[in-house]
Amino acid sequence: MIVVLKPAPTAEMIQRVVQRVEGLGLKAHVIVGTERTVVAAVGNERNGAQQELESCDEVEKVLPILAPYKIASRETRTEPTVVKTGPLTLGGGHIGVIAGPCSVEDEAQILLAAEQVKAAGATGLRGGAFKPRTSPYSFHGLKDKGLELLALAREKTGLAVVTEVMTPQHVELVAEYADVLQIGARNMQNYHLLWAVGEVRKPVLLKRGPSATIEEFLLAAEYILDQGNTQVILCERGIRTFESHTRFTLPLATVPYLKERTHLPVVVDPSHGTGIASLVPAMSAASVAAGCDGLIIEVHPDPSHAMSDGAQTLTPAAFEATMATCRLVANALGKTM
Amino acid sequence: MIVVLKPAPTAEMIQRVVQRVEGLGLKAHVIVGTERTVVAAVGNERNGAQQELESCDEVEKVLPILAPYKIASRETRTEPTVVKTGPLTLGGGHIGVIAGPCSVEDEAQILLAAEQVKAAGATGLRGGAFKPRTSPYSFHGLKDKGLELLALAREKTGLAVVTEVMTPQHVELVAEYADVLQIGARNMQNYHLLWAVGEVRKPVLLKRGPSATIEEFLLAAEYILDQGNTQVILCERGIRTFESHTRFTLPLATVPYLKERTHLPVVVDPSHGTGIASLVPAMSAASVAAGCDGLIIEVHPDPSHAMSDGAQTLTPAAFEATMATCRLVANALGKTM
Amino acid sequence: MIVVLKPAPTAEMIQRVVQRVEGLGLKAHVIVGTERTVVAAVGNERNGAQQELESCDEVEKVLPILAPYKIASRETRTEPTVVKTGPLTLGGGHIGVIAGPCSVEDEAQILLAAEQVKAAGATGLRGGAFKPRTSPYSFHGLKDKGLELLALAREKTGLAVVTEVMTPQHVELVAEYADVLQIGARNMQNYHLLWAVGEVRKPVLLKRGPSATIEEFLLAAEYILDQGNTQVILCERGIRTFESHTRFTLPLATVPYLKERTHLPVVVDPSHGTGIASLVPAMSAASVAAGCDGLIIEVHPDPSHAMSDGAQTLTPAAFEATMATCRLVANALGKTM
Amino acid sequence: MIVVLKPAPTAEMIQRVVQRVEGLGLKAHVIVGTERTVVAAVGNERNGAQQELESCDEVEKVLPILAPYKIASRETRTEPTVVKTGPLTLGGGHIGVIAGPCSVEDEAQILLAAEQVKAAGATGLRGGAFKPRTSPYSFHGLKDKGLELLALAREKTGLAVVTEVMTPQHVELVAEYADVLQIGARNMQNYHLLWAVGEVRKPVLLKRGPSATIEEFLLAAEYILDQGNTQVILCERGIRTFESHTRFTLPLATVPYLKERTHLPVVVDPSHGTGIASLVPAMSAASVAAGCDGLIIEVHPDPSHAMSDGAQTLTPAAFEATMATCRLVANALGKTM
Repeated sequence: MIVVLKPAPTAEMIQRVVQRVEGLGLKAHVIVGTERTVVAAVGNERNGAQQELESCDEVEKVLPILAPYKIASRETRTEPTVVKTGPLTLGGGHIGVIAGPCSVEDEAQILLAAEQVKAAGATGLRGGAFKPRTSPYSFHGLKDKGLELLALAREKTGLAVVTEVMTPQHVELVAEYADVLQIGARNMQNYHLLWAVGEVRKPVLLKRGPSATIEEFLLAAEYILDQGNTQVILCERGIRTFESHTRFTLPLATVPYLKERTHLPVVVDPSHGTGIASLVPAMSAASVAAGCDGLIIEVHPDPSHAMSDGAQTLTPAAFEATMATCRLVANALGKTM
Repeated sequence: MIVVLKPAPTAEMIQRVVQRVEGLGLKAHVIVGTERTVVAAVGNERNGAQQELESCDEVEKVLPILAPYKIASRETRTEPTVVKTGPLTLGGGHIGVIAGPCSVEDEAQILLAAEQVKAAGATGLRGGAFKPRTSPYSFHGLKDKGLELLALAREKTGLAVVTEVMTPQHVELVAEYADVLQIGARNMQNYHLLWAVGEVRKPVLLKRGPSATIEEFLLAAEYILDQGNTQVILCERGIRTFESHTRFTLPLATVPYLKERTHLPVVVDPSHGTGIASLVPAMSAASVAAGCDGLIIEVHPDPSHAMSDGAQTLTPAAFEATMATCRLVANALGKTM
Repeated sequence: MIVVLKPAPTAEMIQRVVQRVEGLGLKAHVIVGTERTVVAAVGNERNGAQQELESCDEVEKVLPILAPYKIASRETRTEPTVVKTGPLTLGGGHIGVIAGPCSVEDEAQILLAAEQVKAAGATGLRGGAFKPRTSPYSFHGLKDKGLELLALAREKTGLAVVTEVMTPQHVELVAEYADVLQIGARNMQNYHLLWAVGEVRKPVLLKRGPSATIEEFLLAAEYILDQGNTQVILCERGIRTFESHTRFTLPLATVPYLKERTHLPVVVDPSHGTGIASLVPAMSAASVAAGCDGLIIEVHPDPSHAMSDGAQTLTPAAFEATMATCRLVANALGKTM
Repeated sequence: MIVVLKPAPTAEMIQRVVQRVEGLGLKAHVIVGTERTVVAAVGNERNGAQQELESCDEVEKVLPILAPYKIASRETRTEPTVVKTGPLTLGGGHIGVIAGPCSVEDEAQILLAAEQVKAAGATGLRGGAFKPRTSPYSFHGLKDKGLELLALAREKTGLAVVTEVMTPQHVELVAEYADVLQIGARNMQNYHLLWAVGEVRKPVLLKRGPSATIEEFLLAAEYILDQGNTQVILCERGIRTFESHTRFTLPLATVPYLKERTHLPVVVDPSHGTGIASLVPAMSAASVAAGCDGLIIEVHPDPSHAMSDGAQTLTPAAFEATMATCRLVANALGKTM
C-alpha cells in the first residue's frame, strides 16, 4: 500500500503515519519527494488497513498494490479451473453452451425447449423456476413445480440443469434439483446467499452485478470460494451505462481481462447483455472470439409468446444458426464447442 | 402503450398486432404516419404486456405511457407520507436526522456516539450490527450483540434506532430491536427480503441501488408497499458513474424528482454518496436545499480509529457544525430540523 | 411523436395541445386512456417539434417515433456503403485493417512501422501528425512534418494514410496528404470541423465520442453527409463507464446494432477501446466476429519507447499473430480480410 | 509515481525498470514486498513518464502521486481567483448569477429577457448567438446578428454578456462583443479552441464535458491558463450516466471537491444539469448550499415558445422565486448574492 501524505507534512505527522502503519502489522518505508511525501506500507494489506489509513488526518489518499481477492487469483492457482457436470464442460479449451427459456412455463414448453437446444448442441439447460422480476406485478415463476419440470427435462434429455436460487432458505431445495446453481445479477452482493451456496458442493454460476467492478465481482466469487466451494463460474451479463439502445452494455474485454486475473471459467450471457434477439447471434460469436469458456443463451420454442424476456430470446432456428457460426469461430481459435 | 411497427407494414401485419393488443385486454388505435405506423394500446399496461408486444416480429419498439409503479405514486395518494417513530420525524416540513457510526463496535463507542449525535440534534441513531462488506475478509459486525447495544443506546438517549437487515431470516430478530429497518443498497432488489420487511409493521428505510433507475427504485418500494407496509422511506445514497474522485456520484436532482412522483419521504446519505468526510457538510446542506425530508450521516467519536468507513465519517465537532448550517438552510426554506 | 399529457387534462388543455401540434405542421390524433390522454402527432418530427411540445405546460413528456437522422439511415439507402481508397476497402464483405503508431515520431519509425504493418496484411496506415492530448504538457505531434512523413510512407508502401484533423483551419492541409481524414472522439460534436470535412471529397473516419449515444453518433455523421460527403466511416472506440480496469469500455453490440440502422461501414478501435495491449488481440477477433467492416489498431516497432499510448500498442509480432487469428475468424464468417 | 512490477521479478528486471525511471530524470527507490515489488519514482511526473513506464514489459501498473495539472492547482495559488467583469462578480464570498435564454431569437426577446433577469437580480446575461445543436437540422443561432443584439442588451441594462464561441476562427469576433467567452461542454477538449481563448484577455467560462473526469476538466482549464489567461471559470453542467429521468446527472459534490483542489471559481448550470424546468429551482438552491460561486440559468419570457431548450427554461416568475430562495440560502451561509 502506498500512503500519500497531505502536502508539506511535518516530521511529527510523518511519524504518526509510520506508527499507524506499523500498528497494522506492516513495515513502513518513507519516501520524501519534491512535492509529496509517501509512506510505502509493506505486508498483507487485505485486512481493512487501507480504510483505516485513509481516515487519518495526515493522509491524502491510499493506493493499494495488491488485488483484494486471493483464492480467485491466478497468482494463487495458475492452472485454469474446469467445471464439469454431466455433459456440460466449461473451460480447458472447451466452450459449453447453456440454453433454454427465461422461465419454465409448463411441461410441454420446457420439454420441447430442452430437446430443441440439445439438438442444436447445447449441453446445459437454463430455465427459471424462481424468477426475480423488477415489478412485483410480474410473473415470478412456477417455483417448486418449475424445479420438478427441470428435473423431468434432464431425465428426458440428459442436459445439465442450471437454475437460479434467490434466497438462502431455498438453497437446499434448489440444490436438490439443479446441477448448477445460478446467482442472479441482482444478488451478486447478497452475502448470506453467497455464504449459503458456498457450502453446497455443486457448481455455482455467479452473474456479475450491473454496476459491479471487476474487483467486486471477484470478491463476490471469493465469498463462495472461501466457504470451500471451488466450482465458481463467472458470468458476464452486461453492465449499466448511459447506453439505452441495448438493455445493458456488454463489455467483452472483461473476458480476456478476467482470464489474466483468475483461474475461474468465464461465461457470457449475450441475451441479457443486449436485450435484443437480433443482436444475440453476433454477440455470441464475439464472445467466443473474445475467449469465453461458455455461453448462456435464452431460447424459447415461440419467443413471441414467452411469459418473460421474449424480446431477447432466440427462436430454435436462430439458435441453431448461432451455434453453427460459434462452432466455426471456436474451431478457428483451436477450441471445441 | 405505443406500439411502433417496423417500416412499411402490410395490412395483415397491422392486424396481427391489433389482435395481440386486444388479446392482452387493451384497446387498439391504429395511427398511420408518413414513415411509421403505430398502434396505441389503451388500458392497464402494468402486467407485462410491454414485454409480450416487444417480442412480436412486426414490432420495432414499445413505448410505455404509464409509470409501472402504482401504490408509491403521487397519483394514487396526493398527500405526503410522513414517517414518525419515537422522536424521529421524516417529512411534512420536518427534516429528521439519523446519525451514528458505520458499525456498532462496543458499548462505550455506541453510547458515546449516541450521546454526541443527540447533543447535536439528531433524533435517529444509525449503527450497523449486521454489516455487508465487499470483501469476505472484512469485519461483518457484532450481529446480535450489536442489536442489544443499539437497544441500550436507545434506552439511554431515547433516539430511534435505524439498523440494517441483510437476509429474510433475520427480519424478525432485527425488527425486535430496531425502530426502522434499513435495506442496504446491495439488497435493493433482494425480493425475498423486500417481501419479508413488507410484512413487518415498522418503517423501512430503502436505499437506492447504485445502478438502479428511479423506476426500479420505486418498484422496489412497491414490493414492500404491496405487502401492506405503508411506511417506506426512500434513501438516495449515490450512484455508480464514471466519476472516481468520489466513492459514488450523489445525484441530488432525484430529490425534487422523487417528490414530484411519489408521496414517500426522501432521505439523503451524503456519507456514502461522497465517501469523503470533507465533502459531507456541503452535501448535507445541498440535500436540505434540494428538498429532502431527512439525512443519514456517519458520525464516530474517533473516525480515524473506526472499524469501517472512517474516511467518510464525520467527527462529532464536524457533525455539530454541519447540523448548524443545515438548520439555517432548512429555516431559510421554511422547514424545521 | 406521442405527446403524453399531464394527468386529468381538461378539454381546453387537450385543445391547446392539438393546436400546438397542428401549428407545427403535424396532424393530431387524440387518444383518451384510463389513466392518461395522449396526442399522436403525425408527420415530419425532425425539426425541433419535440422540444417545443415538451415545453408546453399541459405536456408531461414527448416520445419520438422516428430516428432523428435521415441520410445515414438504412431506410434511406438500403445497400451498404463501401469505402475504397487505394488498397484499403471497408465493407461489402471485406474487413480492412488500418494499423500504425499512435504518433508519427520520425522518418525511421514511421517507415519501419508502415513496412511492418503492411507485411502483416494491413492496407491502411494510421499515425498522428496533429495529436490531441489530455494534458497541455504532453507531446502534440510533429504537425506538418508528420504529414510529410506519412506521405513518404505511402510512397514507399502504397498504404492508404489515415490521420487526424483537429480544427477547421487544418482541413485543407490534412486533406492534401491524407487518404482518410480522422475526426477524433473529443471532436465528434465539433460541428465546424464536421462541416469542414463534409465539404472535402475524401473519406472521413468519425470516432464515437466516449459519452455519445448512438443517435448522437449518427447525427454527427449526418452533419458530414448533409454537406455532400457520402464517405463516412463510423468508428467505435469505447465509451466511458464506471469500469476502470480498462481505459474505456468497448461495447461491441454497437457493431450489429449500427449495421441494422445505417448503411455506413463500421470500424472498431480495440487499442483505445481497452487501453491495454494484452487485451487487443482478443478484442480484435471479437470485433470481427461481431461483424465489423474494419479495424484500426495501434502498432509500433518498439511500444515501450513510443512517445504516446505505448501501453495499448502492439508489437509487430503481436500484430502479425492478431491478424492471423482475425483472418481465420473472418473466413469462418464468410468474409475476406 | 509508484511503479508496480509484475509478480516475482528477477534482479535484472528490477534493474531495467530502475534504469528507465532514472532515464526519465526521476530518482528510483526499490521496495520489495511479500507479494509485490514496487519502484517509487520521485521527481516531476507530469511529462508523460507514466505512459512510458506503463508500456514496459516488466511493469504491471503505474500509480501517479501528483495531480497532472499545476497552474489550476490550489497548491500553486492558495487564495481564490475572483472573476469580475462589469456588474458580474464570481467568487470571494459572492455568488454571481448569469441568466437568459438559450438562444438569442430577436431584438424584442433578448431585450425583454435581459430586463426580466436583471429585475430579479442577475448581473450576467446569457444567450446563444452561435448554437451547437445535436442535429444538423436544428436552429443554429442568429450568429453575428445575435452578437449585436447581445451588445444592445448590455447597453440597455448594463448586464455582462456571456456567450458561446464554437471555433477558433470566431474567437476574435465573439471577444469583441462578449464580456465572458463560453466554451460549451462538447468543446471542452477542443484544444485549438482552448488555445485560442487562452490568448484572449477576457474571462472564459469553461463547461465540463459530460464524460470528463475532474482531472480532464482541470487539464482543459490548464490549456487556457497555460496561454496566460488567468480568468477561467469552471462550470459544472451535469454528466452522462445511466440515469435517463433527467437530461444529465448533476453531481454537486464536484463543487466542494473542486474548491479543495483549485483556486478557480465554480459555477453550476442547473438548467442543462437537469433538463427539466421544475427541478431547476431546487437544484439552484442546492448548488448555492454546496458552495458554488455562481449560477447560470436559462430564462425566457415565454419558454413554451422558445426556439431551443424550452423544457428546461424558467419563466421570469419562476426565476424570480428561485433567486429569492437562493439568496436566503446564500445569506444563511454568510454569502452575498
